[in-house]
Amino acid sequence: MNTTSIKAYGTEAPNADLKQLHIERREVAAKDIEIEILYCGVCHSDLHTARNDWGGTVYPAVPGHEIVGRITKVGSDVSKLKVGDMAAVGCMVDSCRTCHSCAQDLEQYCLNGFTGTYNGKDKHLGGRTFGGYSEKVVVDEHFVLKVPANLDLAAVAPLLCAGITTWSPLRHWKVGKGSKVAVVGLGGLGHMAIKLAKGLGAEVTLFSRSASKEKDALDLGADNVILSTDEQQMNTAKGRFDLIIDTVPYIHDVNPYVTTLNISGTLVLVGYLGGLEPILNTVPMILGRKSVAGSLIGGIAETQEMLDFCGEHNIVSEIELIDMQDINEAYERMLKSDVRYRFVIDMASLKK
Amino acid sequence: MNTTSIKAYGTEAPNADLKQLHIERREVAAKDIEIEILYCGVCHSDLHTARNDWGGTVYPAVPGHEIVGRITKVGSDVSKLKVGDMAAVGCMVDSCRTCHSCAQDLEQYCLNGFTGTYNGKDKHLGGRTFGGYSEKVVVDEHFVLKVPANLDLAAVAPLLCAGITTWSPLRHWKVGKGSKVAVVGLGGLGHMAIKLAKGLGAEVTLFSRSASKEKDALDLGADNVILSTDEQQMNTAKGRFDLIIDTVPYIHDVNPYVTTLNISGTLVLVGYLGGLEPILNTVPMILGRKSVAGSLIGGIAETQEMLDFCGEHNIVSEIELIDMQDINEAYERMLKSDVRYRFVIDMASLKK
Repeated sequence: MNTTSIKAYGTEAPNADLKQLHIERREVAAKDIEIEILYCGVCHSDLHTARNDWGGTVYPAVPGHEIVGRITKVGSDVSKLKVGDMAAVGCMVDSCRTCHSCAQDLEQYCLNGFTGTYNGKDKHLGGRTFGGYSEKVVVDEHFVLKVPANLDLAAVAPLLCAGITTWSPLRHWKVGKGSKVAVVGLGGLGHMAIKLAKGLGAEVTLFSRSASKEKDALDLGADNVILSTDEQQMNTAKGRFDLIIDTVPYIHDVNPYVTTLNISGTLVLVGYLGGLEPILNTVPMILGRKSVAGSLIGGIAETQEMLDFCGEHNIVSEIELIDMQDINEAYERMLKSDVRYRFVIDMASLKK
Repeated sequence: MNTTSIKAYGTEAPNADLKQLHIERREVAAKDIEIEILYCGVCHSDLHTARNDWGGTVYPAVPGHEIVGRITKVGSDVSKLKVGDMAAVGCMVDSCRTCHSCAQDLEQYCLNGFTGTYNGKDKHLGGRTFGGYSEKVVVDEHFVLKVPANLDLAAVAPLLCAGITTWSPLRHWKVGKGSKVAVVGLGGLGHMAIKLAKGLGAEVTLFSRSASKEKDALDLGADNVILSTDEQQMNTAKGRFDLIIDTVPYIHDVNPYVTTLNISGTLVLVGYLGGLEPILNTVPMILGRKSVAGSLIGGIAETQEMLDFCGEHNIVSEIELIDMQDINEAYERMLKSDVRYRFVIDMASLKK
């Protein structure tokens, strides 16, 4: 298969900085779209993969799965988009397309495993897929999204992961006008959860451990902020929420949040992969038919729905634009939660 | 308020046997129904309350919340049933009737706390309510159920707690034809879960730790039995079930069952009140949008729906009929799981 060598930014070892390197991209096949990457959001998963925090990283690793750009080439059978269109790619570039999940537009739960945009098993070239910290990407049209023309392109990028990760549970658990939604944690995911839940007509509350987040949360559209360290405020919130989106990426006690769920309410974890400690108490769950659930990104149709919704409601991410060369410093700042609320790389800087 | 002294069976201390005693029942008020109790099922909660296992028991305590009998008196405003009708009473004899839960026929989640059939706060006489181990009971018509005429009365009694406790999650999580349901544990609740899920058209699997349960489970209508101690059988079941009803009343590891849930599936705990140990792993929950939930008995309308469904499908509990005087021995046998599958007291024996 013909390939082209392009510039990218990646790392060759868990403890090495990211640096410029070259990777190969395939020529477009009949169903492929080639995109010149203009912006790429920086997700915590990028850092975890670069540093092999979850194990399984194959080096060199090129992160980036919040990709926005301009279409430069399309295969002979592509009908969804054309050269010159703005397009986006999220966390997946392929899946089996035939399993029960894929058949229901739930590619994120593909029973044969979806192909991650980076560090996934590349079905075309072998080895691993390379992500959006690069000049171009070639993706099957099924996994390419249309970008509403009215939105700021750079600020669209984080919708492809932070946006859809919070949108999918909002939709699955049927949030709409009159719903009471709470969000735990105000970071990349949390700030999108507030904007999207608000856009859907919900009353939105932020749980935060820090009073300093209050003004920001209200500016983002939250109706209320509850200081989760304040027992009295937590007591007042008992039995209140239909859905809680818990975006906290590290181990934490979910029990106090479960008690703030309404009858039949659900707390959905989207950030923390691991064991629930302190242990989950089933008493409030049984006495109020409450659920604790998990959710992973979203399907392709659902991602398009989210982008269209954002276009209609003029919703984008709050971003800090950086150059590709700033990525190592950006990772250090992310580890200190020193970002409002998402770094996005201006990929023009890779041409420098 | 006028009262009548009647015979009952109860206990005066956590470590005392149950014995015959006398309690007062109120005269019927306008909306009340008086029922001569013919049969009363024996639930694990009876034993826990008698022995103060959960704390909060006020003595003397008269258990029993699976009540079936004949109406002997009705108040002037009663329209639902008449003298001579067969009727039933379950776990609740009152609730606030006005909160958001009650307004939705979810009296079991009454935000002001429902009145338990025993050891509940008696709104009429003060003190605590006395349950079905007694000659008669007086209950507001809203909390009295109609009993289908075609069913064996004694075997209907356990439907009022074991039946509705498994019916409610089957309905809430929309089990029907084509659903794949698993049941964990084959006791009073588990055997009803199998019968009701099967009645609703689901494919039903029993998880059991003991191969000896296989024949019984198949006889009750289960399509499959999986030995939960057999790793190979558990691996084969991965990703299979839409709903798992976990009836196990003691601490146990739910993680192996969560992995057998299908995408978007739910494991609902109906038996175990306490902390989930070993700790719950969120990884399979997030990677498959799986939920762990709780559920408590069911509302009054839902209980009537269940009784009507049982009438149509000729479903009753498997019971062992005992005399009132056998109750202390029955409790000991229950603690050894030596019952297939529910003790029911022939209340005629109380007249002896």
